[in-house]
Amino acid sequence: MNIDDLLGYAKRTGMFWPSAEIYGGSAGLYDYGHIGAMLKRRFENVWLSYFVERWQNYFLIDGSTLLPEKPLVASGHAERFNDVLVACRKCKTYYRADVLLSDLGVELHEGATPAEVDATISRNNLKCPKCGGSFGEAKAFNMMIDVSLGPDKADRGYLRPETAQSAYLNYYREFNLLRQKLPLGLAIIGRAYRNEISPRQGLYRLRELVQAELQIFFDEQTFKPDLSNFSGARINVVPYTTGKLESLTPDELVLRGYPVFYVYHMCLIDRFYRKILGVQDTKLRFLEKGGDDKAFYNKIHMDIELNVESWGGFREVGGLHFRGDYDLTSHSKGSNKSFLVKSEGREFMPSVLELSFGVDRNVWAQLDLFFNNSDGRQFLSLKPYIAPYTAAVLPLQNDEQINGRAEETFQLLAGKYRVYFDSSGSIGKRYARMDEIGTPFCITVDYDTVDSGSDKFQTVTVRKRDSREQDRIKISDLEKYLHDAVEVNFD
Amino acid sequence: MNIDDLLGYAKRTGMFWPSAEIYGGSAGLYDYGHIGAMLKRRFENVWLSYFVERWQNYFLIDGSTLLPEKPLVASGHAERFNDVLVACRKCKTYYRADVLLSDLGVELHEGATPAEVDATISRNNLKCPKCGGSFGEAKAFNMMIDVSLGPDKADRGYLRPETAQSAYLNYYREFNLLRQKLPLGLAIIGRAYRNEISPRQGLYRLRELVQAELQIFFDEQTFKPDLSNFSGARINVVPYTTGKLESLTPDELVLRGYPVFYVYHMCLIDRFYRKILGVQDTKLRFLEKGGDDKAFYNKIHMDIELNVESWGGFREVGGLHFRGDYDLTSHSKGSNKSFLVKSEGREFMPSVLELSFGVDRNVWAQLDLFFNNSDGRQFLSLKPYIAPYTAAVLPLQNDEQINGRAEETFQLLAGKYRVYFDSSGSIGKRYARMDEIGTPFCITVDYDTVDSGSDKFQTVTVRKRDSREQDRIKISDLEKYLHDAVEVNFD
Repeated sequence: MNIDDLLGYAKRTGMFWPSAEIYGGSAGLYDYGHIGAMLKRRFENVWLSYFVERWQNYFLIDGSTLLPEKPLVASGHAERFNDVLVACRKCKTYYRADVLLSDLGVELHEGATPAEVDATISRNNLKCPKCGGSFGEAKAFNMMIDVSLGPDKADRGYLRPETAQSAYLNYYREFNLLRQKLPLGLAIIGRAYRNEISPRQGLYRLRELVQAELQIFFDEQTFKPDLSNFSGARINVVPYTTGKLESLTPDELVLRGYPVFYVYHMCLIDRFYRKILGVQDTKLRFLEKGGDDKAFYNKIHMDIELNVESWGGFREVGGLHFRGDYDLTSHSKGSNKSFLVKSEGREFMPSVLELSFGVDRNVWAQLDLFFNNSDGRQFLSLKPYIAPYTAAVLPLQNDEQINGRAEETFQLLAGKYRVYFDSSGSIGKRYARMDEIGTPFCITVDYDTVDSGSDKFQTVTVRKRDSREQDRIKISDLEKYLHDAVEVNFD
Repeated sequence: MNIDDLLGYAKRTGMFWPSAEIYGGSAGLYDYGHIGAMLKRRFENVWLSYFVERWQNYFLIDGSTLLPEKPLVASGHAERFNDVLVACRKCKTYYRADVLLSDLGVELHEGATPAEVDATISRNNLKCPKCGGSFGEAKAFNMMIDVSLGPDKADRGYLRPETAQSAYLNYYREFNLLRQKLPLGLAIIGRAYRNEISPRQGLYRLRELVQAELQIFFDEQTFKPDLSNFSGARINVVPYTTGKLESLTPDELVLRGYPVFYVYHMCLIDRFYRKILGVQDTKLRFLEKGGDDKAFYNKIHMDIELNVESWGGFREVGGLHFRGDYDLTSHSKGSNKSFLVKSEGREFMPSVLELSFGVDRNVWAQLDLFFNNSDGRQFLSLKPYIAPYTAAVLPLQNDEQINGRAEETFQLLAGKYRVYFDSSGSIGKRYARMDEIGTPFCITVDYDTVDSGSDKFQTVTVRKRDSREQDRIKISDLEKYLHDAVEVNFD
């Protein structure tokens, strides 16, 4: 599928579409429909269980998306959270410099300054792709969305540009509440906002996005999680030093100089994608950034990339960032609080390892990677615990008794599992609708179900999405059947 | 507890505190810590199961919090989402007129105009409570927070003032996606933003809040849900006509002229608070608004109120609003789309019934209503499915074998249930910490657990929060034990 195909599929199946679309929409803003909202929620819940709830010292917190100015000055965002903007002098079209240059096939490193952009444009004699006009001077454009609060609108604030800041702002209190133990993990699933110059590619570049991020605060000298949990793992990685895709074991990664705690989390993320989400080995890689492409505060910076056909290849869906003590040092200075930790005669500032995931991008990737179109059948082969609906209840014939039993079956399961009820259209059409949104089990109520003379009395047919195999199951066993089907094996 | 007591308790236990507090905070913005975030999430999940997932035709959707200007002009918010603001001429303090007058003991009806406020101030000769100065002219103050989007910041938008708008904006597509059936329910759990003049009373009046709202679109002539589901119910209500608290049966409410669909949802909400959350009968009431106090588009408007000691009595935590066809008519006009439905020879605009809940206010109310301080013990008697943690695993002694078995027990349950691990401090202190945050079950691993010669080998003690009774249970039975304990009986 290309981007338009996927957007069309998303609209048709209740996944997502431009927000306020009856008014013509608004660039970079999307709404999730009744299927997409559940898919997003499922992804978030599995992420939460896998990365947070299984750990004794990792916790979910939640922070306001509006922040006052001070912390975002201290973090450097007010000064440096910029993209470079160029505008055509003639037709006044605005471009994000890196996107423009990449579209024109000209190389530009990440974080290039306006002067560097001007030089590149002039050296290559680039013109506006729309009208052929020449460009004005490149400018730094701060991507934060500012707001004014209070009755006199005198309190300047921002919509947070990343959830990470809320974790850093709460670190001090949480560290003390949780009795000063390291490592400490603070996770947030929430919104972040960026005034993107050129929102595009569906859910790839949004002005309002959802992030699932885990910030791990730790002592570099003592944080050495056990790599033996991942013996046998092979990680697809493009190290900055070689620039080539390699498949490396955890031990080999350590030999290359990546710290144990970093390798451990590469493995953890690798397992999440491959095993929990079921992504194919070849579709996942870590891309290390270095030199000018790396954020200056990161000591090690890898993008998590998935090979997403509709985006034209490997694209970033997350990141693993060893941020050193940049964040705590900045906020310690900004707030005049000491975050230094004393332990066994040493005094140190904890470091931060950030596991960051774009939820919208991952939702998009799920649709792209798991959509199947074969044998004239379209089905979305999501893991059962990711699928928006776990099961559908379908009365086979339009018969009062069958409908009644189907309703009862729905009531038995609803509220505990995500169950869809559908009584309209041929059974083939109803199966097809469920296949398209990835519902793993279709439960069919038929004449045998309600016929006390039948040896299939009180049983239903359960059809499996991918194989189309059918099981005949007692209604009283359905709960257990679904329970087992949606249970996640995290190990 | 008063407000400060509750805020102190919330901070001490990891519930919530002012956002960016290391920088001095920002009025009306709060962050949730590791206990509060889970409590909020639990409340949302139970709300979702109860009000949405149990119904065949009710669905969760999700919309962007940023909205372009047009729909908020059409909805009337750009013109009318105002509070009246007065400022002291001398000390320049700003006041929200209704809060100021209520604090000064002067009556003012909801929705009073600036001219009415001026008249009231002058008639009562009111002065600034801070400095005794006189007030300037009252002004209408729009509470929406505006933003500017795009590279030239030319696209005016707003942070949505209520989640409801996202549902109305998506109604048209969802109605067609879901094959044009009514009633159709669209639910959103998400943030809304209001530039409150005087944020205060903890989580009561916030600038950023979470709402859980269900908008039911229906045909007034045919929507008659079955009241017999609620036979025996008695609803505490203060009807506008009598102004007195009455305890009425569903049938009596219908006789008073409230439509069946409205009474049905009063009963549904009543059951949610009393049975699902366990709120005492006398702590819940519906307060009907009428005359000037009622929003002009509402045909029937009741506040859902809880008697919350820290707020000084009954306060609004939600609402049940029969909004007629105001919303769909407004957006149909604004967007130039016809939302009229044809059915059996009739053509009509669907009506809207809104079930609206302030999640932050409900979280606050849970703490207020379920905190117990008796016999020198403090415990939060939340329902097990609302409690932030379902269980704690506590190694009784500091012993390698016991710790190891405790870790294994944690791993067995974690990721499936919310489990806290705590090995530091006396067992009494650890119980007390869990009591304070409402953890219903404390699982203790002791010498018997690891002693193969003991008849208690492989068993643990489960201590119940409220009664402090202890059960001895096989580790292998724990999963089932917790599963049964957190299951919600919705009927």
